[in-house]
Amino acid sequence: MNRRMIVNMIGRIVMLEGILLLLPTLVALCYGERANILCFAVTVVVAMVVGILMQLIFKPKTKVIYAREGFIIVAFAWIILSVIGAVPFVLSGEIPNIFDALFETVSGFTTTGATILTDVESMSKSILFWRSFTHWLGGMGVLVLIMAIMPSDSGRAIHILRAEMAGPVVGKLTPKIKDTAKILYTIYLVITFTEFVLLWIGGMDMFESAVHALGTAGTGGFGVKADSLASYNPFVQWVITAFMLIFGINFNLFFFMIHRKFKPVFTNRELWFYGALVLTAGGILTFSIYPVYNNFSDSIRHAMFQTASIMSTTGYATADFNTWPSMARCIIFVLLFVGGCAGSTAGGLKLSRVMILFKTITRDIKKMLHPRTVSNVKMEGKPLDNEITSSVTTYFALYMGLITITFLVISFEPFSLETNLTAAISCVNNVGPGLDMVGPMGGYANYSSFSKFILTVAMLFGRLEIYPLLLAFYPRTWMKK
Amino acid sequence: MNRRMIVNMIGRIVMLEGILLLLPTLVALCYGERANILCFAVTVVVAMVVGILMQLIFKPKTKVIYAREGFIIVAFAWIILSVIGAVPFVLSGEIPNIFDALFETVSGFTTTGATILTDVESMSKSILFWRSFTHWLGGMGVLVLIMAIMPSDSGRAIHILRAEMAGPVVGKLTPKIKDTAKILYTIYLVITFTEFVLLWIGGMDMFESAVHALGTAGTGGFGVKADSLASYNPFVQWVITAFMLIFGINFNLFFFMIHRKFKPVFTNRELWFYGALVLTAGGILTFSIYPVYNNFSDSIRHAMFQTASIMSTTGYATADFNTWPSMARCIIFVLLFVGGCAGSTAGGLKLSRVMILFKTITRDIKKMLHPRTVSNVKMEGKPLDNEITSSVTTYFALYMGLITITFLVISFEPFSLETNLTAAISCVNNVGPGLDMVGPMGGYANYSSFSKFILTVAMLFGRLEIYPLLLAFYPRTWMKK
Repeated sequence: MNRRMIVNMIGRIVMLEGILLLLPTLVALCYGERANILCFAVTVVVAMVVGILMQLIFKPKTKVIYAREGFIIVAFAWIILSVIGAVPFVLSGEIPNIFDALFETVSGFTTTGATILTDVESMSKSILFWRSFTHWLGGMGVLVLIMAIMPSDSGRAIHILRAEMAGPVVGKLTPKIKDTAKILYTIYLVITFTEFVLLWIGGMDMFESAVHALGTAGTGGFGVKADSLASYNPFVQWVITAFMLIFGINFNLFFFMIHRKFKPVFTNRELWFYGALVLTAGGILTFSIYPVYNNFSDSIRHAMFQTASIMSTTGYATADFNTWPSMARCIIFVLLFVGGCAGSTAGGLKLSRVMILFKTITRDIKKMLHPRTVSNVKMEGKPLDNEITSSVTTYFALYMGLITITFLVISFEPFSLETNLTAAISCVNNVGPGLDMVGPMGGYANYSSFSKFILTVAMLFGRLEIYPLLLAFYPRTWMKK
Repeated sequence: MNRRMIVNMIGRIVMLEGILLLLPTLVALCYGERANILCFAVTVVVAMVVGILMQLIFKPKTKVIYAREGFIIVAFAWIILSVIGAVPFVLSGEIPNIFDALFETVSGFTTTGATILTDVESMSKSILFWRSFTHWLGGMGVLVLIMAIMPSDSGRAIHILRAEMAGPVVGKLTPKIKDTAKILYTIYLVITFTEFVLLWIGGMDMFESAVHALGTAGTGGFGVKADSLASYNPFVQWVITAFMLIFGINFNLFFFMIHRKFKPVFTNRELWFYGALVLTAGGILTFSIYPVYNNFSDSIRHAMFQTASIMSTTGYATADFNTWPSMARCIIFVLLFVGGCAGSTAGGLKLSRVMILFKTITRDIKKMLHPRTVSNVKMEGKPLDNEITSSVTTYFALYMGLITITFLVISFEPFSLETNLTAAISCVNNVGPGLDMVGPMGGYANYSSFSKFILTVAMLFGRLEIYPLLLAFYPRTWMKK
């Protein structure tokens, strides 16, 4: 176990967060939010000093790390990132309760977008900016950012990339991890900026455009209004629908497109499945909510927006789907689990996992008919060995277990079964809203600090896909072999 | 594909059902229900004639069958069994709608106990008896009964036993399948009769004792009163609690006890897990509902009854758990999935599957830490190979898929999400009651014929653990190799 390397890497994360916090400090300066300037500045200084000290004191003798260290680095990086990220909320007094602040920060970094705020419209601009900026950082991954911008080392950084990036199979785009990370972040930045411009053209002011572009990019869901996006014009709502869908796509495909390799994009099964699912769910939703709006253009806009929002696990809303008919609420409920494509910023189970599960089931049925025939599960044209299919089915069981445990633990709260169940599902899948009390126009404010903490942990588990955190707190991991 | 053998076996089933229908005919005679005597007698004659003709016309050239034929025999046997079983309900005019009658019959045979009746207390005794008798027959399995009582053949009958009996691993107790089947049915009969006597002593009349003993034994849940068992005395309620738990235990263990082999019983991990889960869930429930009853003895009685009822997937109730606090309803919701032990008459996922899922997850975590170490999942002291663990995790995904599809299809019904969701879960797991409208004091009467049919199919899928029905309707199964 390369402990020095672990602490050193976390030191970098802390330092980087200090640097990143300069951005909201700048926002505070621009909008003349004097009290907040100090809050952010203090956090910046402390984070940078601590981060640099950690790196100076713990100089690794060797930079080689294995899967184990990768998991631990990612797990602790995310925890410490969240704790430091919560400091400005508490210092500014805008979210004084520490559990609330932690919930909000983790909800930000994990791109969940669940909120404990009851009056988001009274918050200061710099705080709102930081809140949405965490979405952007957490979406692609902070460790990926480190790899992209800091001096390279360790050939084994793939273990960190794998542990932080979501999906069953993470591959490198280029021989060097550093280049892959750079490419991913550049694509990310460009698409985010495009959305920002479009929103601004659409009539949002500069600040709102920035917040919503950041929130969409990370598939987060934090906004600036109590009714999310319901009060914006249809153009803005359609732009956000489109970008939510875009950020739910595997980023590797954008990389291929830049290099004019269109074949792997058009033959990407996961993308087709994603498109088919969006259209099917959106279609049924349109049909189902038509009686509510009595108007085709409103129905299709709300249906597509909500489908894109839930499938990409963003969580923005243009309508209170809580009041929609049974069929529509059922579709939303099921979509809470699914998530976007692997290698996107979306959370959830991921479509490629759903596909592998389906194919594994089909394989098992064939095996029953012809026990002696060897049949393999194929994904994107490549055969998957039994180890991968088995790890996906096991992950599914673990994931359902995580939802069940979260649900059981928070069920002492006197809310409806629908509230507690969808809160657990929504947090684990990093969606944000659920149904009933935690619906799109509601929130998590009424939960006790204990439940908020449990849901905070659930969001982290969901974002990191369970194993890193499980391993980091599994005693055997720390034993010497 | 040995088609003659398939039709021949189904002919036997039909004939056997004709014989078994003599019992409710006798009940109709005893209680002087003249109209019903005719209804049952007609069904008896038709079933016997058809059954005998099928056997005479389709004489198999060879009695050898494989897994494929086993699945097909079981799938069609259960479908035809249900169709014939529904005839007396329709003929008697007590359940005139054919979808209602089919729902009720399948609910009986699959030991679900979900009902579409709105006034069970006005039904005739012979019809109520047949309804509960289907529980008893379906609990242990009708094909198992055939093997126990009819002249033996085919050394491959294990394929039928495997396809009909629930649980991840079905073993033979004796070298001959016929003997295993006989032993199982003898144990079943003796315990049922013991319960019958105890209920009679407890103050139920003969008819009620019989109906409830049959309903408990099959872990079904059909009773004779609108409030299930709420109006009976505590002694009767405790007796049923005990027997629901007993019928949730693997029958192999009773076999060991008869042969005075106590060690395999005491070291049975699944039994320990079952006990621990019953006590934990019962304990939390007691604590959770104490404020409702303000009385320890009532609280513990209702808590234990409902825990035993849901865990054994019986579905009887002494209290309307629908009105219980959040925590209690959450526990009930989660227990809907779990089910009893493998090799019992209980439905659900089965505890041994839950244990294998948990162990497989642990194995995968260990594998991540030490990729090169081979670690096996052990169950009851024996190592399970990867094929079995992988088939269990895949089954779990398939099972969750079945619940999701059932839920999606019935969600056009204008009922609450809780109603539709728990209806789907409860039917797939063969429990019976769910929450909200389908709660223990409610029922499935308000569903449309279409949804009733979907739920009927879901119950069959759940009882036969999906694969037999899936394979029977999978075109490839019928193709010549």
